[in-house]
Amino acid sequence: MARNEAEVKNDLFGFGEPNTAYAKYFEGNSFLKGLASDAASGIGVGEVSFEPGCRNHWHRHVGGFQILVCTAGEGWYQAWGQPAQKMKPGDVVIVPDGVKHWHGASPDSWFSHLAVTKGKTEWLEEVADYDEITAE
Amino acid sequence: MARNEAEVKNDLFGFGEPNTAYAKYFEGNSFLKGLASDAASGIGVGEVSFEPGCRNHWHRHVGGFQILVCTAGEGWYQAWGQPAQKMKPGDVVIVPDGVKHWHGASPDSWFSHLAVTKGKTEWLEEVADYDEITAE
Repeated sequence: MARNEAEVKNDLFGFGEPNTAYAKYFEGNSFLKGLASDAASGIGVGEVSFEPGCRNHWHRHVGGFQILVCTAGEGWYQAWGQPAQKMKPGDVVIVPDGVKHWHGASPDSWFSHLAVTKGKTEWLEEVADYDEITAE
Repeated sequence: MARNEAEVKNDLFGFGEPNTAYAKYFEGNSFLKGLASDAASGIGVGEVSFEPGCRNHWHRHVGGFQILVCTAGEGWYQAWGQPAQKMKPGDVVIVPDGVKHWHGASPDSWFSHLAVTKGKTEWLEEVADYDEITAE
């Protein structure tokens, strides 16, 4: 069994449904559980869980932001032009307005994070060097 | 021992330092651990832990918002003019711009939440009816 499957499937926020609406912007399978949203502020909060090796494409949140909080497992976050950084439970990343980035699981580990999101998401190209980045 | 002390002191985000900077706006002792901040967006993320019975005064975040995510223990959130709602691990509340509110622990339980905050905080009066609200 890949690392951290039980931790991710039984974490504080539970385990969501297959993230079919966004599947075309992900490599591999992810799962989404909506937790809260507020129309006035345009903010949504959800938990996203990734199977081992799953990651999304480069994207940015325009007119808003995204905050990622790792809740279980192990994964990666990278902002365009910056080194990729490993995310472990309790790690927090703030993605400012318009910053191109991606996030996802390690190749051999499940991964889950809270996502607090505002703004229009613009989806871009796949991550070309995931294998090299995560080979460490 | 009050309920949930071990859960709060050993949760995913750890246990902060005495929250002396804001002590005058709280009844009882709270603890603050900064996790991330971003100058460009003005967003800060931290973990706040409350001893049993500790709660803050009515306040609002102007020109921003606050998102509360209960990470351990048991507490309360109330928006002005609305019923108080109990918060348990995994519960999420979005506080829109300018909404007057308070949050804190149950009388017999430790409580901790993530706080994602933007805006200028305006501190107001103490919560007059905490005892009645939390007596259920």
